[in-house]
Amino acid sequence: MDKILRVDTRKRRIDVLPVTEEETRWGGRGLIAHVLLREVPPTCEPTGRRNKLIFASGLLADTNVTTVGQMSIGGKSPLTGGAKECNIGGGAGRRLARLGVRALIIEDTPAETGRTDVLEIRAEGSCLVEAPELKGKLVDETIAALRVKYGSKVGIFCIGPAGEMVMYAAGIACPDDSDVQIRFAGRGGLGALMGSKGIKAIVVDDTGSTYKAPIHDKALLQETSRWMAEALLKDPKTENRNTFGTPAILALASASGLMPTRNFSSGTFEKADDIAGERVREEILARGGQTGKPCVTGCVIQCSNLFPDKTGKKIVASLQYESICLLGSNCGIGSLDDIAEMNHFCNQVGVDSIETGAAIGVAMEAGVIPFGDAEGAKDLIRQIGQGTWLGRIIGHGAKLAGRVLGARRIPVIKGQAIPGYDPRGVKGNGVTYITSPMGADHTAGNAFETLKYMDVLKPDGQVEISRKLQIRAALLDTLGLCLFVRPPFVKRPEQFGNLLKGRYGWDLSFHDVQLLAWDTIKTEREFNERAGVSERFFPIPEFMEDEPLPPKNAVFDVKMSDMGSMWDGGFTPLDDF
Amino acid sequence: MDKILRVDTRKRRIDVLPVTEEETRWGGRGLIAHVLLREVPPTCEPTGRRNKLIFASGLLADTNVTTVGQMSIGGKSPLTGGAKECNIGGGAGRRLARLGVRALIIEDTPAETGRTDVLEIRAEGSCLVEAPELKGKLVDETIAALRVKYGSKVGIFCIGPAGEMVMYAAGIACPDDSDVQIRFAGRGGLGALMGSKGIKAIVVDDTGSTYKAPIHDKALLQETSRWMAEALLKDPKTENRNTFGTPAILALASASGLMPTRNFSSGTFEKADDIAGERVREEILARGGQTGKPCVTGCVIQCSNLFPDKTGKKIVASLQYESICLLGSNCGIGSLDDIAEMNHFCNQVGVDSIETGAAIGVAMEAGVIPFGDAEGAKDLIRQIGQGTWLGRIIGHGAKLAGRVLGARRIPVIKGQAIPGYDPRGVKGNGVTYITSPMGADHTAGNAFETLKYMDVLKPDGQVEISRKLQIRAALLDTLGLCLFVRPPFVKRPEQFGNLLKGRYGWDLSFHDVQLLAWDTIKTEREFNERAGVSERFFPIPEFMEDEPLPPKNAVFDVKMSDMGSMWDGGFTPLDDF
Repeated sequence: MDKILRVDTRKRRIDVLPVTEEETRWGGRGLIAHVLLREVPPTCEPTGRRNKLIFASGLLADTNVTTVGQMSIGGKSPLTGGAKECNIGGGAGRRLARLGVRALIIEDTPAETGRTDVLEIRAEGSCLVEAPELKGKLVDETIAALRVKYGSKVGIFCIGPAGEMVMYAAGIACPDDSDVQIRFAGRGGLGALMGSKGIKAIVVDDTGSTYKAPIHDKALLQETSRWMAEALLKDPKTENRNTFGTPAILALASASGLMPTRNFSSGTFEKADDIAGERVREEILARGGQTGKPCVTGCVIQCSNLFPDKTGKKIVASLQYESICLLGSNCGIGSLDDIAEMNHFCNQVGVDSIETGAAIGVAMEAGVIPFGDAEGAKDLIRQIGQGTWLGRIIGHGAKLAGRVLGARRIPVIKGQAIPGYDPRGVKGNGVTYITSPMGADHTAGNAFETLKYMDVLKPDGQVEISRKLQIRAALLDTLGLCLFVRPPFVKRPEQFGNLLKGRYGWDLSFHDVQLLAWDTIKTEREFNERAGVSERFFPIPEFMEDEPLPPKNAVFDVKMSDMGSMWDGGFTPLDDF
Repeated sequence: MDKILRVDTRKRRIDVLPVTEEETRWGGRGLIAHVLLREVPPTCEPTGRRNKLIFASGLLADTNVTTVGQMSIGGKSPLTGGAKECNIGGGAGRRLARLGVRALIIEDTPAETGRTDVLEIRAEGSCLVEAPELKGKLVDETIAALRVKYGSKVGIFCIGPAGEMVMYAAGIACPDDSDVQIRFAGRGGLGALMGSKGIKAIVVDDTGSTYKAPIHDKALLQETSRWMAEALLKDPKTENRNTFGTPAILALASASGLMPTRNFSSGTFEKADDIAGERVREEILARGGQTGKPCVTGCVIQCSNLFPDKTGKKIVASLQYESICLLGSNCGIGSLDDIAEMNHFCNQVGVDSIETGAAIGVAMEAGVIPFGDAEGAKDLIRQIGQGTWLGRIIGHGAKLAGRVLGARRIPVIKGQAIPGYDPRGVKGNGVTYITSPMGADHTAGNAFETLKYMDVLKPDGQVEISRKLQIRAALLDTLGLCLFVRPPFVKRPEQFGNLLKGRYGWDLSFHDVQLLAWDTIKTEREFNERAGVSERFFPIPEFMEDEPLPPKNAVFDVKMSDMGSMWDGGFTPLDDF
């Protein structure tokens, strides 16, 4: 990956720049962090001229290592105001890597608002094309129209009407090659950032690419890569993920009392059985859907699914734990069909299902519609796409909706909705939400696994565990690997070094590879500190300190002084992964 | 003023506490700053349980010094997130002082939302009384209903429906004794803070008060006070203010190119003549209204007015420059009748006319209604009171409205709308908006006067002048004097010391009195620093750096490094006032 594309949306000019030696060391999330700190004023208006939308490949993106097709997308987050990175599957990321594009950086805003451009990226050159016919189109409609024009061999990123209207809950969609799954860079409002640049879609066509990844040691890379795939396939966690997908954890989440329910007023849902992973699989199999689908070509874990209606027609793909939880239990909705349809509507208007579920939850607490009102909730999501006043309120996320609609419990940290793990029920996650540069984002360091080996209701040790989980997540996000590849590396963390040595020839111990992760976090923290998005200004929502969470009845009580000093000592290497 | 009232809105308990020696030194804005820093977690949710609403008397409030009936009201601002103080006239402040109440501190929130309580403050004791009959009532209706129950001898603070709905543009109203003028603690969203406490109104009855202000040296106080009143009456500035009120400056503001027009896209308004101070006076006199009205009993400046319709019936009192500018030129509206009616509607629903005018301006830019559409604008204000979805968006102020409605130019600093002086047209004000703990608030240090003696379009010297103006404002706010009392003190600043010596027996030079002001600013800055509301995180809106302001075509170019270091050297005393 030898080039960086810079798109100036005001001058409508695209520059192709060689990747520098320094930039070669930055991958995925780390590359986004460095570009932000180097080029974006930390206090800039997130949907203004000075912010940049960055698509970055992980360090291993142009190899055949399993799961690496995931793409990092980031910028200064409209919701948190800090550094943001989301990584997603779909068919476009791998194509960018095959074109040798390490990063695509979209700059400035068009002089006039309301543009609808398509950014075409091709081997022979890239350009911005006006596409007024796509204005206001839903995500499915947009993809279908692009397929007519560009065919089935291109990769696509696009936004729905929510992104075009610069709503802060908007995400960026990326279909797989068959347009069955729509993957979403949901968190942080990156769809609003793309909308502010006037770009409705990006089409990536790698036909005719002459780029060849300069693999330093093919044998080593191939051997390590094969070991990784085989070890993953043998691991029982992989089997569980393949069988049930992310909804696998739902029953335990509810039983443990950490699953957001009715706007975070309970940690357990009486209809958990009806929406749990087992039930998801059962319905999918009975209706002729699919489990065990990959989100990127070449993934051996294949944790995704296709959830059909009773006639076998797809409602949504993939139906995931976070969506079931935030759109389901958190709204008091216990029917998988309703939840899948809500999820589908979110994907159509182009908003994050987590942020939107949390926003609907606060709207329900505020009395806009009652808890459990699935039809009302669907209508609210439709209204986001229509841009009604109420739709705009919901479409800007839980914090704004809670304030405008008058809810008291607003489950956000750094302006971003808390995902499917109530911080009172699994305190390590609370620490991650507060201390991670990403804000309330479980992918930055999910302590769900700590249920198995520590007391998740006590404050003790949570800071330590979150730090460890955050380094782990940043490491994978920087290499461009999925969070689910961990199992084989637990016993052999030195294999990360072998992957990088195979690709680049670098000699890195496990400790050195961790330094790449630490560099990512440190750079993000520096950006956030300058942006005013330090953990000390964004504590836990007060109701989580004041109201014990049934049924375990814990409040969140990890001290800010402990969390605030979490990284004070700098980097402490992990012994194991 | 020997006591502090503490009202716990959850336990519904009121404690009366003696004022400590230390607290005696804190007056008005300074007292609010110290209570905030001492008792309120800086990062708390502004409309949550931990914030406090503070009413504080200035140091001279229980004397007969002219203009001292103004009351300081403050708390952690919903809009800025930092320390906030507004001071206002009306009939309640003086009554609190006559009861010996130095501060009224309202704490916690009721357990259930939607309460409508009246806080009765009397010599014989105070209590919280349920008043569901006031729920949703407009400000005029509320005052009328309170007069029926409590008579004409009480002072009143109250909120309109916007405050009850916890909208961030909401202010706190205070009628004069005849209910003709409605004065507003408008800035910062303090009405939302009062609404979050479930308090619809505060009734202050000083009947039977046995409190006697312990005047240290009656003769000195009386002599200094008389000198001050006489000197004010002789000053031509006072005459101008008495004749034209605050609208006096409008013609110059427009001619100088600093008057916000059409959402801050121009500094001059082609219909300025139709809404200028001269025209205001002309219409008032022709229609049988009044000019030269005092906002507090005993004021000799008397800069307020009563603006009637063509039949002589009051539309609004008092019609002020800021309202004419933000509701008028900033919305492209050039009819005084329309502006007065919009102002009246703001007063009825209980929102700040500055914040609301700026919010309507961004709504106009976003195309919700066209610039100049006075009927549309009135309808938007009515919708605030009705709590429609669009009304809620507008009622939360310019920043939120701009974001939700999709405007590009959002004229706010620290989340608060910029008042009637565009920072590009008078750069000292830009410095004040950014560096003052109050955010975009001209009363914290208005550089309009610098038009007369410096180049307001150059960045040079603006930091220095703003610092001086901020100390001046903080000094008056701490003593409880109106900003307009300055003229006599220009030549004899030592008279501040004599006023305080007469009341308290303190021996303070002008330098010492300035230290009281500096203590106020320093304490607010400390609170803001801990709250994450430092100037370095809240620069000028980007469009003011990028778009020259017609007709003078300047951009805002004072450097953040100069502004951010403004107070680094600590306090530098002023030689003159």
